[in-house]
Amino acid sequence: MRISDIREATASISSNIRNAYVDFSQMTVSVIAVESDVVRHGRPVTGYGFCSNGRYAQGGILRERLMPRLRAAAPEALLNDAGDNFDPRKIRTIMLTNEKPGGHGDRAVAAAAVDMAVWDLMAKLAEQPLWRFLSENHNGGGYDERVLVYPGGGYYHPGKGLKDLQDEVRGYLDQGYKAVKIKIGAATMAEDLARIEAVMDVTGDGGDLAVDANGRFDLATALAYGKAMQPFDLFWFEEPGDPLDFALNAELAAHYPGAIATGENLFSLQDARNLMRHGGMRPDRDWIQLDPALCYGLTEYLDVIDMVEGMGWSRRRIVPHGGHQLGLAMTAGLQLGGSESYPGVFQPFGGFADDIEIADGMARPGEHIGIGMEAKATLFAEIQSLVGV
Amino acid sequence: MRISDIREATASISSNIRNAYVDFSQMTVSVIAVESDVVRHGRPVTGYGFCSNGRYAQGGILRERLMPRLRAAAPEALLNDAGDNFDPRKIRTIMLTNEKPGGHGDRAVAAAAVDMAVWDLMAKLAEQPLWRFLSENHNGGGYDERVLVYPGGGYYHPGKGLKDLQDEVRGYLDQGYKAVKIKIGAATMAEDLARIEAVMDVTGDGGDLAVDANGRFDLATALAYGKAMQPFDLFWFEEPGDPLDFALNAELAAHYPGAIATGENLFSLQDARNLMRHGGMRPDRDWIQLDPALCYGLTEYLDVIDMVEGMGWSRRRIVPHGGHQLGLAMTAGLQLGGSESYPGVFQPFGGFADDIEIADGMARPGEHIGIGMEAKATLFAEIQSLVGV
Repeated sequence: MRISDIREATASISSNIRNAYVDFSQMTVSVIAVESDVVRHGRPVTGYGFCSNGRYAQGGILRERLMPRLRAAAPEALLNDAGDNFDPRKIRTIMLTNEKPGGHGDRAVAAAAVDMAVWDLMAKLAEQPLWRFLSENHNGGGYDERVLVYPGGGYYHPGKGLKDLQDEVRGYLDQGYKAVKIKIGAATMAEDLARIEAVMDVTGDGGDLAVDANGRFDLATALAYGKAMQPFDLFWFEEPGDPLDFALNAELAAHYPGAIATGENLFSLQDARNLMRHGGMRPDRDWIQLDPALCYGLTEYLDVIDMVEGMGWSRRRIVPHGGHQLGLAMTAGLQLGGSESYPGVFQPFGGFADDIEIADGMARPGEHIGIGMEAKATLFAEIQSLVGV
Repeated sequence: MRISDIREATASISSNIRNAYVDFSQMTVSVIAVESDVVRHGRPVTGYGFCSNGRYAQGGILRERLMPRLRAAAPEALLNDAGDNFDPRKIRTIMLTNEKPGGHGDRAVAAAAVDMAVWDLMAKLAEQPLWRFLSENHNGGGYDERVLVYPGGGYYHPGKGLKDLQDEVRGYLDQGYKAVKIKIGAATMAEDLARIEAVMDVTGDGGDLAVDANGRFDLATALAYGKAMQPFDLFWFEEPGDPLDFALNAELAAHYPGAIATGENLFSLQDARNLMRHGGMRPDRDWIQLDPALCYGLTEYLDVIDMVEGMGWSRRRIVPHGGHQLGLAMTAGLQLGGSESYPGVFQPFGGFADDIEIADGMARPGEHIGIGMEAKATLFAEIQSLVGV
């Protein structure tokens, strides 16, 4: 068994939305196909992957560093000891040979796209949905039949008013979602508080509403928002300050009694460990949100879960960012706390398979083999057009 | 005044050396030319830059993200308020528009290459050596006539023995260097201690010998090396553990009385601040080594210096990594503690101008306009062949 081909391409996910930090008018992602020499139904079994939104395609790093190393590796060096499937840790080690420690950014994003394709391929070779493959091989057989999901929405658009925001949220509730998330930080605090109150008129209270500042606030602003939002008892206050300002996070946690969620812009085990060590995060209420499609992949994420549990936390406090099928599969198969969802944005890469139904704010993972990208028609058409044979 | 062209290319700096983490057989760097519409001596005034070694060329990020944003900017948006030169902060902001916070890795390396070219261009437009331009504009006129420099050497080569290592170090002393640095961590501790003792036979004692583990050690190994090396009273013990394991660094600092140096693999103000906050660094003896050609450039470095001084440290504790002409110029013009030097490796990008003499372990910055790449013949020939008109 060997990898017979690796292909990469860049896809556009441009849109006119913006958060407190960036607009997405030029946003791209990398798409990967890892093809094996195992043939089923007349076709080579192939895994597909992509990087998550927000960090752009990584074609340069993929073509110049990561993919050549995998192509140059001896085929058996990529297999597990039994020789009946691939070994994601060996693949990661080879892909990152001669890469210095530290500096976990674009490289982690590039590696995550390949890693997603490797796990899709492994589950397909085992003829299992990824969530079941993870459950059996990495979670002692445990899995969740239903997973908490929430739409990452409430972006700023030019001309979008409170009524439009309410309509958007009503749409999510109509689709079966219960908890929702909106952006804050790209308007004045008064305007943002009005946005929050407008959405609470739809959700009923703050317990099903998370707000996301996308790392925009300095300490004084984060504390001011925290004080103003405290009465709402929100689901969580996400990424209040710079993702690497652990001291700011700790200071906010000392003053804001509500839940804090952060981590989507931490791209390694080492960075996540620093958040846990220095960020003042509280194991009884706060949430960790690393994105497996940005931080070297699910392979690194397994080490992150071990690290989090090793510090006395429950893995239920982990809610992967990204709103993609990988997040849903790993949340179910590894029994994490929940998964973001993108029913409306970052299409076709955001969101779950076409037949996944949301009810009471929960999703059931499907029985599609692998990650299930073939069961999301627009996504699979895009993937086939970009990295199909 | 405007930028009339920006060009980039990839240069190979492959060699058969290795440190404790990577070999350099496939190493590349990005080279940049930023050409202005100001014509002198019949040619457009042009700044040149490159990224430092160890992190590979960044052509993808440069071509797809950073350079298009600069090309699309209004010319006057890149100028200082007087309109008589460029503004590196405005250029940085535009270059990094729609880039999310956190994840400071390859992107920081790409930006640093552009930033170096921008400072070279600015000093050339002012018809000054960069060190003097920095002194007058960012250091109240202060500068150092002589700068402490040390060769980053003592790499592992296949077949290189203790005698060869001693000969290498003797060569540095013959060139006028006093302090030297060798690698540790890619051999057994007994072998590394023998390497250290062999070099001390040449340098006379440990005070002029720094050792560099390149982030290889876990805590137990770092402590064991620290205990074994303590009697040598070394110049410093560099990058003992993973560059982001601030807790390891703090624990070593609590046990190892000698100096610790680290920071070459921290690529942002935020990461450097976390080292200062959480790394247990001691202002009376330890050294901070961020590399301006890796961490978004000299522009970001000015903020790092402010941050370091704001925490009560002297800027003399800062010794830029990289062994390039930018490091020498900024150490002289901003009065930092010293600069690495690469007289023998990473050619032609390592090392200083051809006429820079080293005596008593100190270098005098030259009077070459700009950074002075034109005064390093092999470097300028390479630059001209790659990004010349």
